[in-house]
Amino acid sequence: MDSHRKTHQREDEDDVISPKPVALSKYSNRIELKTLLERSDGGARLAGKRVVIGGWVKSSRAVKKDSPPPPPPSQPSSVAVPPPPSTTKSNISCTEIIQSKMNIFRKLFDVLSGGGKTTYPIFDKPEITGQKATSPPEYTIYFLISDGSSVNSLQVVVDSAMSTIPTTQLMSLGTCIVAEGVLRHPLAASAKHVIELEAEKLLHVGTVDPEKYPLSKKQLPLHLLRDFSHFRPRTTTVGSVTRVHSALTLASHTFFQSNGFQYVQVPVITTTGVGEMFRVTTTLDREEKKHDGLSIETVKAAIKEKSRLIDHLKRSDSNREAVAAAVHDLKKTTDLAAQLEKKQKPKAATQKLDFFGCDAYLTVSGRFHLESYASALGKVYTYGPRFTADKIDNARHLAETWNVEAEMAFSELDDAMDCADDFFKFLCRYLLENRHEDMKFISKRVDKTVTTRLEATASNSLLRYSYTEAISLLQKATTRTFETKPKWGVDLTEEHLSYLTDEICKGSVMIIHSYPKEVKPFYVRLNDDKKTVAAFDLVVPKVGVVISGSQNEERFEILDASIKELGSTSREKYEWYLDLRRHGTVKHSGISLRMEHMLLFATGLPDIKDAVPFPRSWGKANN
Amino acid sequence: MDSHRKTHQREDEDDVISPKPVALSKYSNRIELKTLLERSDGGARLAGKRVVIGGWVKSSRAVKKDSPPPPPPSQPSSVAVPPPPSTTKSNISCTEIIQSKMNIFRKLFDVLSGGGKTTYPIFDKPEITGQKATSPPEYTIYFLISDGSSVNSLQVVVDSAMSTIPTTQLMSLGTCIVAEGVLRHPLAASAKHVIELEAEKLLHVGTVDPEKYPLSKKQLPLHLLRDFSHFRPRTTTVGSVTRVHSALTLASHTFFQSNGFQYVQVPVITTTGVGEMFRVTTTLDREEKKHDGLSIETVKAAIKEKSRLIDHLKRSDSNREAVAAAVHDLKKTTDLAAQLEKKQKPKAATQKLDFFGCDAYLTVSGRFHLESYASALGKVYTYGPRFTADKIDNARHLAETWNVEAEMAFSELDDAMDCADDFFKFLCRYLLENRHEDMKFISKRVDKTVTTRLEATASNSLLRYSYTEAISLLQKATTRTFETKPKWGVDLTEEHLSYLTDEICKGSVMIIHSYPKEVKPFYVRLNDDKKTVAAFDLVVPKVGVVISGSQNEERFEILDASIKELGSTSREKYEWYLDLRRHGTVKHSGISLRMEHMLLFATGLPDIKDAVPFPRSWGKANN
Repeated sequence: MDSHRKTHQREDEDDVISPKPVALSKYSNRIELKTLLERSDGGARLAGKRVVIGGWVKSSRAVKKDSPPPPPPSQPSSVAVPPPPSTTKSNISCTEIIQSKMNIFRKLFDVLSGGGKTTYPIFDKPEITGQKATSPPEYTIYFLISDGSSVNSLQVVVDSAMSTIPTTQLMSLGTCIVAEGVLRHPLAASAKHVIELEAEKLLHVGTVDPEKYPLSKKQLPLHLLRDFSHFRPRTTTVGSVTRVHSALTLASHTFFQSNGFQYVQVPVITTTGVGEMFRVTTTLDREEKKHDGLSIETVKAAIKEKSRLIDHLKRSDSNREAVAAAVHDLKKTTDLAAQLEKKQKPKAATQKLDFFGCDAYLTVSGRFHLESYASALGKVYTYGPRFTADKIDNARHLAETWNVEAEMAFSELDDAMDCADDFFKFLCRYLLENRHEDMKFISKRVDKTVTTRLEATASNSLLRYSYTEAISLLQKATTRTFETKPKWGVDLTEEHLSYLTDEICKGSVMIIHSYPKEVKPFYVRLNDDKKTVAAFDLVVPKVGVVISGSQNEERFEILDASIKELGSTSREKYEWYLDLRRHGTVKHSGISLRMEHMLLFATGLPDIKDAVPFPRSWGKANN
Repeated sequence: MDSHRKTHQREDEDDVISPKPVALSKYSNRIELKTLLERSDGGARLAGKRVVIGGWVKSSRAVKKDSPPPPPPSQPSSVAVPPPPSTTKSNISCTEIIQSKMNIFRKLFDVLSGGGKTTYPIFDKPEITGQKATSPPEYTIYFLISDGSSVNSLQVVVDSAMSTIPTTQLMSLGTCIVAEGVLRHPLAASAKHVIELEAEKLLHVGTVDPEKYPLSKKQLPLHLLRDFSHFRPRTTTVGSVTRVHSALTLASHTFFQSNGFQYVQVPVITTTGVGEMFRVTTTLDREEKKHDGLSIETVKAAIKEKSRLIDHLKRSDSNREAVAAAVHDLKKTTDLAAQLEKKQKPKAATQKLDFFGCDAYLTVSGRFHLESYASALGKVYTYGPRFTADKIDNARHLAETWNVEAEMAFSELDDAMDCADDFFKFLCRYLLENRHEDMKFISKRVDKTVTTRLEATASNSLLRYSYTEAISLLQKATTRTFETKPKWGVDLTEEHLSYLTDEICKGSVMIIHSYPKEVKPFYVRLNDDKKTVAAFDLVVPKVGVVISGSQNEERFEILDASIKELGSTSREKYEWYLDLRRHGTVKHSGISLRMEHMLLFATGLPDIKDAVPFPRSWGKANN
């Protein structure tokens, strides 16, 4: 492909009048479609340029050669499908799966082009096969190609004679095509797109087996796409969500580093933590593989038997080799028994056998480890995976999620609230400024209110209610009865939070300080009233808590007492955490943002399993 | 503390002549020392300003009041200790542990100040205690305070009368101090620092128990600090390494996003993978806790016994309740037996019981999942934890490491090599431009060559040798004999790589393409010679491979055959990976950077356990 690359570079260098030279995609042998399609002139001034593009077929139409070109299926900035039949969020249609809609388009084009003037070939397999044997007719194929760099697709016009691959196969949804050609203004006067590619060569075709390709069968709602998590990023919706996710990730690092925080790599494998946790081990597999199903009793019985045999051999003057062999055999069995006993022995023995020499778990939160670094570097943050083994399977819960966590020394609850507030708004603003095209698409396809919601969040100040105020507002609720009756002292449940955001505040809200100490973890700082603790939650409509934060207890005696209440087994593993209060303690507070929940808020997606590339949930870990 | 905050804001607003206004630290109630100490004027123009600062004591000296101030222990931009006694890298001294050096300083000051003129109190506990009972003498304490925002410390001058805490305790290494005061030029004419704080109030003191504080005992080499991973960021060396790590993290995201890559969140829990892996499970704990040591045989014996009892009861006309109770008891035991049988049943049953309903592991690499997203979005990257359960314990290996991985569609091996080359240089340049002070300190303390090495890497082109050339160079080696004799076909070992970088190239080198297929994983693309595969490694002196990359096989038949060679058990779990070749396949290549190894290269640290905050290695998982 080297020659193609050189061609482009020369073309680029010649381009002195273009306001924005067409950049070759770095590290790949083609131009990214984003650089063609997301220009201020829509790409108009690029007409006449020779380029190589690559991508996957989103839709295709064929017209018998020398027929006038049909009107384009759509402007390239949108997608060539009618609105999905169902507009409920849980049933968003997959925009790419339009092959089955081909007949609808044909009828549509008939009407638009005066009817009956252009013939649209029916590409049933038998027909093509039959034609190939004699003399295949030649078609002009109009592809919409996407390369994932942009929500937009490029129309690529291909002569079917360019490839020996049967036309139907070439046209299949999901086919990968790398084409060289010249950019031109569309021939059809009615075309809404500004630029298209007239292909001169097909440099690569990666075919699809339409019988097996999951995306082509029919319009799939998002929840069915979950079984094909390796293909679903090819849908425009999942592509856009990924680009939004990507932007939120960079924005998070940017926010904290530009505010003087240092990134700290906290461990995923940990020895401390609370709640239902995943165990990390190397003993399970090794032991299982070796002695599946063998019990210590069986082996002990075998030892007795073999010992008796040896006695018998000795008594009966058998030859030495036979005795030695039997003794050797017995030795192997007693070794096995020892191994099995070790395996059966509880705790201590298992721990010693295991990789780390102690019980190890997947972390539920990085804040403990962050506190240690905040007590040295002042302001620190991290971004990493967190795990809970709760057997919950719903639209808001995953076993593996990613959190952005920050911890600040010399800092109190108010500081953490300000930080959460600023961070949340920064993320919203960042998306509006940097993912304009994707947000436009998501607004159209997933949730109409999403852009206005981001704008409102970015520019208005967040409502703040104390826990006590929130309870009192809930108690006044007349239009709703709650499963858990709201009264001072109960933890705010999902139904409470959604009533507060959706009905009372009509937007996001911070529930701040004065939480009853019983509803928050043991390490949150006790307020002077001895009844409440210094914590807050940032709650958003339809999603729930996106950021939670707290000022953690810096006073040794109080933290020590809380840990004692956890029971004696916890004592030892929290010694290092207590150490931070023994030596050079300081007031500190921190926050934790649940990235997947932020993504739900930013996209309006109703289910967390569609917000993450490869979700892990109770009973399910695809790929 | 609100009043202090306001004071600062007003001060800031008044500051119109200062080239860089002193910013309050966002989200915490003090000014970050970096903003005072890393100004172009060294802070000179800030004299007279009132500020609140916070940090931890790095060193302290006391002078009886009204004695002339002693010369400062050092300029604030360096650290107040003589060079460590041992200069071997494996024994780098911890710069903060200077309390035990107090006597050396006293003698030094005696000499500098003319000798004997100033008296330096000996702060032994009994003496202080004795004095407190009568009338404690008053001292001026000179602290060097660090808040981790900078490698530099601020001298803070405190009157011992400001606090009721005994002076020795106040002076302890690691004590946390928040002080309000006025910035001034140092009084001592010989002082090398530009600005210091004359404290007027101590707003907070977080004391240290010097008997238990691990950092104060003596100068600890880095490997001893590993047992105190929660305190070691308070040492200047670990603090600097953390800030370098933080910079490399942001730089990685910046590099890829500015080159058009999308971040993709790949899963940590996975069902595919190769080599020694950690198992993730929820069965181990639950089962262990309930029935530790109970075997199915014991329980079955109990069932027999209990059944016999019921028969006996029935035959002997016992009352109904007794029979019902016995039946209920039997039921519980048979339930237990069923549970135990499930537990003992191999594989299938265990899998069903487990959280995900299948065997789950910690990921060894994110590239498989990235390939799926590259086949939709073109260019993608990720940054996350990777795990290997190899029982290796050395200075280059950890069980949990973080990788930056990137995958590009429409891309071949050369593209991946260019990407690795650019990325590596970008990181070096980024550190030189953004971590100047830390790199200066690391050069002084850890490795003198580190800055020149980064500079050379950033500006020169990397040497590239093919695998075949590398072997031939090694074969010509006369000054070294290798454990593994270098001949075409063997995998390059650590000794080969270090000879190549340290002896032959005197620097980093890329070993490129034409690796024998046997030494690389099954998914790497087969070259036309059918003997070699398309992979490369970027190797740096003293560390080894920092980036590896490959063009992965895009041809279905060839990948299919390789997977078949792995054996039948692998087949099913790689079906989704094969799918990517079944449908819309395209040439693609990718790279993987080992962040900890990059950090070793950038800092010259000899052991990976000192490069990561909380290292996890065979037999060890602290905190």
